[in-house]
Amino acid sequence: MKKIILDVMSGDNAPLAMLQGAIDAVREIPDLAVTLVGDETVIRNMAAEHNWDLTPFAILHAPDVVTMEDEPLSIVRSKPESSLVKGLRALADGQGDAFVSAGNTGALFTAGTLVVRKVRGIQRASIGAVLPTEPNVLLLDSGANVVVEPAYLEEFAVMGSAYVRRICRLESPRVGLLNNGTESCKGTPMHVEAFRILSACPEINFVGNVEASAIGDNVCDVLVTDGFTGNILLKTMEGVGKLMLGRVKRVFLTNTLTKLAALAVKKPFTAVKKDFSSEEHGGAPILGLAKPVIKAHGSSGPLAVKNALRQAMLFAQADVIGDIADAAARCRARRQAEKENNENAKIQTNDDERGSDA
Amino acid sequence: MKKIILDVMSGDNAPLAMLQGAIDAVREIPDLAVTLVGDETVIRNMAAEHNWDLTPFAILHAPDVVTMEDEPLSIVRSKPESSLVKGLRALADGQGDAFVSAGNTGALFTAGTLVVRKVRGIQRASIGAVLPTEPNVLLLDSGANVVVEPAYLEEFAVMGSAYVRRICRLESPRVGLLNNGTESCKGTPMHVEAFRILSACPEINFVGNVEASAIGDNVCDVLVTDGFTGNILLKTMEGVGKLMLGRVKRVFLTNTLTKLAALAVKKPFTAVKKDFSSEEHGGAPILGLAKPVIKAHGSSGPLAVKNALRQAMLFAQADVIGDIADAAARCRARRQAEKENNENAKIQTNDDERGSDA
Repeated sequence: MKKIILDVMSGDNAPLAMLQGAIDAVREIPDLAVTLVGDETVIRNMAAEHNWDLTPFAILHAPDVVTMEDEPLSIVRSKPESSLVKGLRALADGQGDAFVSAGNTGALFTAGTLVVRKVRGIQRASIGAVLPTEPNVLLLDSGANVVVEPAYLEEFAVMGSAYVRRICRLESPRVGLLNNGTESCKGTPMHVEAFRILSACPEINFVGNVEASAIGDNVCDVLVTDGFTGNILLKTMEGVGKLMLGRVKRVFLTNTLTKLAALAVKKPFTAVKKDFSSEEHGGAPILGLAKPVIKAHGSSGPLAVKNALRQAMLFAQADVIGDIADAAARCRARRQAEKENNENAKIQTNDDERGSDA
Repeated sequence: MKKIILDVMSGDNAPLAMLQGAIDAVREIPDLAVTLVGDETVIRNMAAEHNWDLTPFAILHAPDVVTMEDEPLSIVRSKPESSLVKGLRALADGQGDAFVSAGNTGALFTAGTLVVRKVRGIQRASIGAVLPTEPNVLLLDSGANVVVEPAYLEEFAVMGSAYVRRICRLESPRVGLLNNGTESCKGTPMHVEAFRILSACPEINFVGNVEASAIGDNVCDVLVTDGFTGNILLKTMEGVGKLMLGRVKRVFLTNTLTKLAALAVKKPFTAVKKDFSSEEHGGAPILGLAKPVIKAHGSSGPLAVKNALRQAMLFAQADVIGDIADAAARCRARRQAEKENNENAKIQTNDDERGSDA
């Protein structure tokens, strides 16, 4: 049995889509319990209105709501009674096994880091985005860490590998570094150093630099980058998706024959369109926190909410975080040993120099 | 009459496609003269083989060729007899009005900067890429300057505006800064500073930050960014293009009806596919050099070569470079005046302080 805490007041369609999704989820998914966080009166009234039975749910009353306009850095202090902050506190206190919210991404990330805290040894948590490729690619970071250091990218690689290994059951996920060419000298000095560090990291299966044109070519399972570039990649996918489907639509309007052709393929095309919207890439795991947190898309309907709950359940069951903690500890030990080796070598050199001076 | 120097030995289909394109161009484009740079024996033999008349052309013999493996930084010294270097030298010496090459982009950019030199006052030249949007957007930088400073982005904005103003006849091209959000605080510290500088620049029509998802939304005519991010955007477009058309193809294979539908739209679809390949975005102008240089796509066929020659002719006729030089001079004067103002203010403050001390 896993208990998932759901931020009922989050997302564009809250609380209706959240409640409907939760009701469907507990009905369909075995061993799932859901705690609803939000304004209890609103929840009970809506349930009564729709004739929904709330007995399977625990309700955690939270009278306040985080909006898209709220400043991520201050909400823990300014909105302690919000569903987002109260839900994260409940998760941190052990009242649930995972937390799902469709709200303000920055607020969820920042409050998550402050309230749930990070795994020991992890410097930066990161939001993963699932790219609509086949097979899927987990892009880390998708926007939270605008400026990164090479060591953060190593952490993203380790965390992404743990997630994909456990959730997608891939023995040895391939990790790529998003770059402007495949050679090891490519990119900024930060990328060159990241390439060196990733190549030397025994925790991951690093396959080298990956160009953005190869995202659909099944060359990696985890793609690491800074959050700025990750955002540009995701948003370009969305922009090109819109652009191409507009162009395709025009092709279908060419003449009577093409208009008939359009009727035959209209429905599957809508699915393709959805695939390439950044809102539809599946729930995004926040990796590096001490407990599982899933960011559902802001536009989530009941189906997306149900899927996010399922994903949170998998995340909680699979002990991804245990793997991340173990890998972080090994990385830490390795760095410590390297440091000591270097210092010993330095002392040795100094001794030698003194010896030759004498 | 404008004389365009064409690197006949460049590109995947050299020299055949280059020669064929040149022959078509001089036949179709009034007032165009073309100088062919390359191995004269090879050129004459190929012309004889195809029964092509070479009398409209000047030929500049260049026995050596720059390959994709050549190191950009060293080719001016290591390959002085290459068609690329000899063509650029001829351009610099006034033997032609523009240069077109489909060869090694890095080599063309670096050798162009060394041989043709930059416009006075311009710190960094930049390669523009024409995005397949409607209307087109000129993306600067598309890959040459991996790390930039805010002042370079101002130069890109000024140069891109001059190009679009003259070539696309837009009175006041809208300039956007590619960023991970529209607010002025978005992006890295570099972006925040660039936003401030671009907002204050009287030479351009700055419309603010532009998200990658809005590239097709007709929000700007010139989009400035660093060359790393520019590469990621272009290559993501290419990757998503491949991915989506694969998905679309599968839609058409669903059943007999959709297969029939496919027949009706096959040809226009091929055109859409071509649009989204990074190789097909039109010839890329190198801006900031003292003479017009166009990088044609490596995969250029005769039609692309002809179009690149037409584009080079427009570039040479339109005095884009005169505009860039004027704007650079005004920017320089403005910066100088600001500096002097600041220094005067400082002296005044010091005097005041001494005054109050006495």
